[in-house]
Amino acid sequence: MRNGTAAIIGGGVIGGGWAARFLLNGWNVKVFDPDPEARRKIGEVIGNARQSLPMLYERSLPEEGELVFVTSVAEAVADVDYVQESVPERLDLKRKVYAEVESAAPDVPLGSSTSGFKPSDLRKGLASGGRLFVAHPFNPVYLLPLVELVSGGGDANIQESASRVLMSIGMRPLVVRAEIDAHIADRFLEAVWREALWLVNDDIATTGEIDEAIRLGFGLRWAQMGLFETYRIAGGEGGMAHFVEQFGPALAWPWTKLMDVPELTSELVKKIADQSDAQSGGHSIRELEALRDRNLVAVLRALKREGSAAGRVIADHEANLGGEDLGRVPMITVRRMVPSDWTDYNGHMNESRYGQVFSDAADAVLAHVGAGPDYVLAGRSFFTVSTKTDYQLETHAGETVQVVTRVLLGEGKKLKLRHEMQRASDGSMLATCEQFLLHVSLETRKSCDPERPVEDAIKEIASAHGHGWES
Amino acid sequence: MRNGTAAIIGGGVIGGGWAARFLLNGWNVKVFDPDPEARRKIGEVIGNARQSLPMLYERSLPEEGELVFVTSVAEAVADVDYVQESVPERLDLKRKVYAEVESAAPDVPLGSSTSGFKPSDLRKGLASGGRLFVAHPFNPVYLLPLVELVSGGGDANIQESASRVLMSIGMRPLVVRAEIDAHIADRFLEAVWREALWLVNDDIATTGEIDEAIRLGFGLRWAQMGLFETYRIAGGEGGMAHFVEQFGPALAWPWTKLMDVPELTSELVKKIADQSDAQSGGHSIRELEALRDRNLVAVLRALKREGSAAGRVIADHEANLGGEDLGRVPMITVRRMVPSDWTDYNGHMNESRYGQVFSDAADAVLAHVGAGPDYVLAGRSFFTVSTKTDYQLETHAGETVQVVTRVLLGEGKKLKLRHEMQRASDGSMLATCEQFLLHVSLETRKSCDPERPVEDAIKEIASAHGHGWES
Repeated sequence: MRNGTAAIIGGGVIGGGWAARFLLNGWNVKVFDPDPEARRKIGEVIGNARQSLPMLYERSLPEEGELVFVTSVAEAVADVDYVQESVPERLDLKRKVYAEVESAAPDVPLGSSTSGFKPSDLRKGLASGGRLFVAHPFNPVYLLPLVELVSGGGDANIQESASRVLMSIGMRPLVVRAEIDAHIADRFLEAVWREALWLVNDDIATTGEIDEAIRLGFGLRWAQMGLFETYRIAGGEGGMAHFVEQFGPALAWPWTKLMDVPELTSELVKKIADQSDAQSGGHSIRELEALRDRNLVAVLRALKREGSAAGRVIADHEANLGGEDLGRVPMITVRRMVPSDWTDYNGHMNESRYGQVFSDAADAVLAHVGAGPDYVLAGRSFFTVSTKTDYQLETHAGETVQVVTRVLLGEGKKLKLRHEMQRASDGSMLATCEQFLLHVSLETRKSCDPERPVEDAIKEIASAHGHGWES
Repeated sequence: MRNGTAAIIGGGVIGGGWAARFLLNGWNVKVFDPDPEARRKIGEVIGNARQSLPMLYERSLPEEGELVFVTSVAEAVADVDYVQESVPERLDLKRKVYAEVESAAPDVPLGSSTSGFKPSDLRKGLASGGRLFVAHPFNPVYLLPLVELVSGGGDANIQESASRVLMSIGMRPLVVRAEIDAHIADRFLEAVWREALWLVNDDIATTGEIDEAIRLGFGLRWAQMGLFETYRIAGGEGGMAHFVEQFGPALAWPWTKLMDVPELTSELVKKIADQSDAQSGGHSIRELEALRDRNLVAVLRALKREGSAAGRVIADHEANLGGEDLGRVPMITVRRMVPSDWTDYNGHMNESRYGQVFSDAADAVLAHVGAGPDYVLAGRSFFTVSTKTDYQLETHAGETVQVVTRVLLGEGKKLKLRHEMQRASDGSMLATCEQFLLHVSLETRKSCDPERPVEDAIKEIASAHGHGWES
């Protein structure tokens, strides 16, 4: 879809995350927040996002949109395609904002980031309430794909169009069919939070011990399969009904009785804060954010390679990003940010990752001549036989690189490519690679001539690139 | 520590996971389970483990131990170093097993996999109860590092020695200081399970929607930071006390009242089972296990690269695995299983991963001559200038490969290596690589001669390897 302009009302951590996600996906963004610190705070969130979101993809994101700060709600929502409200969780405040949105822009889709309120509560008193819906994201908004989309009886067309907007910026809208306080995810967060407060309150475990218990165990399961699919496996061949019947009785066991809410005395608040300081106090919030984002980038990239869970959302989004310019001579075959997990103890991109970039460059050529994944499924492919790589300059995480590729030879089963990897910002040469590939049958695993259309396409490009053999 | 022999009492999914973890870390294992199917079931779990656990490491695990099945508890626990009980969650059954262990082996550490019972309950009536403790693991036991270790007033020396055993097989014991029903992690699992039952019961969400809400959102946060560190960041500069005070009032909001336990009627059981079938029924349990394990391997490897959370546990364990044989001529510089995330759409190891193996091989040589990470910290390193790689045979995930390395040249700042990558099972040649490296100062980023001890060590090896320049 065409990139448009989004209005962000409320510029805290959540509003800033929304602004970053829209901007980095090519949308223009207008922000309104009366906080005099809003510009600085949003700037920090966007800075974090610039260093992490592009790393999720093996292609470059669209050119960043324009960010402006405005001084009123009315100014923010004028002539925009989408409005997202992320002001504090007070119903009176939210309704005041909606009334201002209504008088300035009564038709545009209006999403609320509320983690608790139902749309029917939010839209009370509004004439244009049908275009209001809940779009509840998860921090950090620029990395986590989930957004709970709750219409609660609102305009179905508006919800549909909001869903397309959210998908176009790489998110996965989960339609919550029945409106309910706290939607779905935050009900779980509340349940866990209650239990955690008890454990700390009763000196069973510290905040640090609780975090270890989560992240070394079931947190790993939930990051990729969630609750029920995990338990389905635990049920074994007996299946899910067997599991529920086996696990069910535990619900009546004594520890499940501990379900009232601990009082948040100043002693309990202090205890939690002190334990958290002991656990994480050695790091500033900025350092923790950077650590979190590096971890999330690494985990999301891992899931993307597997095509699972959040990784599939990213892969789908990537497939819709424009490809590079393969029509020009020489071709631009790769353009991407170097992710943080590609560096080694020397602090620069490891030599094997140069190999990955050049392998991706070859894949782009192959896809362009009709020998991509579909061709492989049909039983033919090109295998790399040898490579010669020269490393010229160091490359660092966060830099954008591009690969310029020439087809040196394309004759029968032989294909020879020469790649130049450049720093995108100044064009300096980072490394060169010559690859020799042979066309093979995946049945016999032996070399053979390509299908005719592929062979012709390669010949044509080799001729346009004006090269015979080069040493 | 010396690898010993473990007795596994109860061979279901959990007992099988324990058996696999011990075996693959070089322990001998004796299993007792009266189920005539136990041998097949444990065999399947161990099969899964063989295809995943070794992939977590860039080094090879010890040689696999010996697995025997025995026909009594007494036979299982005779002459072993560690006993792990994983029979069904019935107190009478567990106590019966402990009495049999007591008469045959009264001194050996005795861990219980119970997810619910307290050690003080388990050890009632035992003369040797002091050596009994809870060692509660998480499925799949062979991949997830967490084990809750609850002594509950038992023998401190036994707990200490059990902790060393568990660490030696790559786990992270979390000492639960106060005994409590369901320890720590399962209290959270119970809380989430209760809430999930309500949501399904009340038709708010299906099992599939709940799984999406978890794995695309907070599941990703919890896999790497847990609960409190995540919220600490959400609290921003105000810190944890600020966050608790801000988030605290939500505890009194209406949705937190929904805390009684839904009755597990046959209708509810059927509804969950039907939804789970619709969500995951297209895959067999074996397929889901394989999917889960591939995802976990990918996520754990990602966290290992970042040195975070469960990844740090794996990195620490890896550091204690023996290195390869660098004293022989030529050197064995790498020996490892090819992980599943190294393959591409051709179904074989991507060319860039050959580069990674050869890069690791060079690192092994450098560490051996005193130019490893410490040398880099001191401001000197070797940078790769060029590589020439020839790919001879395809390599697949799950295969163990080794690299044989010769130092072709070691003169001043110049270092030239030749690596041969072989399939470990039959020695067939998979690929060769020649690397040319230059010694650099990390301050000037320019080439210079190595420190004297490093230069001497390289010269000596180059001379032992009997080579001058080779083309």
